[in-house]
Amino acid sequence: MMYTLAEAQKLIEKHLANIRFPEEPGELYDPVRYILSIGGKRIRPALCLLACDMFAGSVDSALHPATAIEIFHNFTLLHDDIMDRSELRRGNETVHLKWNENVAILSGDVMSILAGRFMNEAPGAVLRNVNDEFLRTAIEVCEGQQLDMNFERRLTVSEEEYLKMIELKTAVLIAASLKIGAMLGGAAERDAAELYHFGKNLGIAFQLQDDLLDAYGDPEVFGKKPGMDIVDNKKTILMITALREADEKQKAVLNNWLKASGFDPEQKVAEVLRIFDELRIKDTVETLISNYYRSSVQSLDQLNTPRERKSELYAFSEYLMKRER
Amino acid sequence: MMYTLAEAQKLIEKHLANIRFPEEPGELYDPVRYILSIGGKRIRPALCLLACDMFAGSVDSALHPATAIEIFHNFTLLHDDIMDRSELRRGNETVHLKWNENVAILSGDVMSILAGRFMNEAPGAVLRNVNDEFLRTAIEVCEGQQLDMNFERRLTVSEEEYLKMIELKTAVLIAASLKIGAMLGGAAERDAAELYHFGKNLGIAFQLQDDLLDAYGDPEVFGKKPGMDIVDNKKTILMITALREADEKQKAVLNNWLKASGFDPEQKVAEVLRIFDELRIKDTVETLISNYYRSSVQSLDQLNTPRERKSELYAFSEYLMKRER
Repeated sequence: MMYTLAEAQKLIEKHLANIRFPEEPGELYDPVRYILSIGGKRIRPALCLLACDMFAGSVDSALHPATAIEIFHNFTLLHDDIMDRSELRRGNETVHLKWNENVAILSGDVMSILAGRFMNEAPGAVLRNVNDEFLRTAIEVCEGQQLDMNFERRLTVSEEEYLKMIELKTAVLIAASLKIGAMLGGAAERDAAELYHFGKNLGIAFQLQDDLLDAYGDPEVFGKKPGMDIVDNKKTILMITALREADEKQKAVLNNWLKASGFDPEQKVAEVLRIFDELRIKDTVETLISNYYRSSVQSLDQLNTPRERKSELYAFSEYLMKRER
Repeated sequence: MMYTLAEAQKLIEKHLANIRFPEEPGELYDPVRYILSIGGKRIRPALCLLACDMFAGSVDSALHPATAIEIFHNFTLLHDDIMDRSELRRGNETVHLKWNENVAILSGDVMSILAGRFMNEAPGAVLRNVNDEFLRTAIEVCEGQQLDMNFERRLTVSEEEYLKMIELKTAVLIAASLKIGAMLGGAAERDAAELYHFGKNLGIAFQLQDDLLDAYGDPEVFGKKPGMDIVDNKKTILMITALREADEKQKAVLNNWLKASGFDPEQKVAEVLRIFDELRIKDTVETLISNYYRSSVQSLDQLNTPRERKSELYAFSEYLMKRER
């Protein structure tokens, strides 16, 4: 049968809810249950199932590997939240605050290993390759997180460096979710690689759009106060582009705000946005996003499988690009 | 050929030195290079190679899995050092002090994944089982570390609980190193299980002996100030046994020292040792160690392989039990 994204998400949700992690030690496994239960859209594992289904593979055989990806993703959130000193995750208290930092480190560690164990239940014919794809990607995600932390301490980041960072931190796991699904579905190597490119470019487009929404999203729909990245001096694609395209005067204003302390946040957001507007940053970034989006769709086009089997992925990518604006 | 333990250690050392981890990001991979270069006896991976060799398996095919075990072991040290706020590891600054805590978390994370990747290079016939043995054990090691942290906050720990904790935290990884080696060497399931029991019981004996050496070891040979566990209120097998066997008066003295603050460490060690001596704790614990040691040797005896192929493991276990006292 052909699953829809929503059906795949439900399948994963049910599968996750049925996993029985050990009761003891509670300090180790309670946070695992907690972070897996406070939501998340299960996009990555659902894409894994859809990719498998697309090549008429047995979706059942992809359930454990898809679960592995979701557990790994949540492990990265758990450890990132420690490193970023975040207080909230999906509107709930982060693990290192609800318990403590040691608990967050160790329960994250066990999640990373549990993910490996779920992946190791892939069918024998693709086991080594699927494990390797997963582990290689997992390493890249760590590299991306390290780059992200490095960039926070740097004054300038080039567009190329930034794109590489979001590719590693965000896009490759989406890409690998699809590729692993395709491998499990018995896809030809070329098609699995094509799906990887689809996911990678879509993932980059998605992350860039996140930057855009922070400044230009409808706060009613986006659900966040606009301009938080500006307040926090985040080196988003908007700021990177603005610093590159600004004239001396505009650059001085931007740099003043980047160095300012004790400022009125609303004033900072308004004045930085004014310069963004002068420089038509929104247009520039939208063009960049469109390019990545177009590349991703081209990969889908080239995929050697009947068009009706791709419709769910076309719809998904379109939905992602149209979200909340 | 038949390797000696020393030869196996050298093989591993050379293999580790030849691994080229990526240069960038340096904050991610420098700590990996650092912790793998500041020593360690490479006992676990060497045992893995010996076990493989014992069944006339190709030691070459065990090099990557053995490396995985050593990398995993060092990952646990790295993260344990954060959680325990340790300042020194093998006489060198710990990673979270030499760099910072975030670097220690993330480089530990990547080591855990790298370990999984090295293990995933095991030969196809045993790949899934070897991966699973490794990952199951890795999860147990996390459980052991959590129990260890829990016990620190508790007033009393039973002998049974303590033995379970050291089994998980220390013994199962030694056991799995041997079992994985045996699996790679083509051993029958029964023999692999026998080697696991050998390693598990030897590992427990080793850890209990560590407790004993802290109080009764020759400081010249042991290289540590004696009685540090007593000063730190560690719930070692000595203290657990003493609290169980003490009469009311002795128990009161021990509990006073456990609650004391601002004391003279030498006086505390001397008075606690006096009670240990009154209760013949050294004898009781030596008997316990002998029992585990005897169990481990029995497993070796039962192993279905020519005696000369086991001689290195007999020698190793004897050496471990006779060390520094």
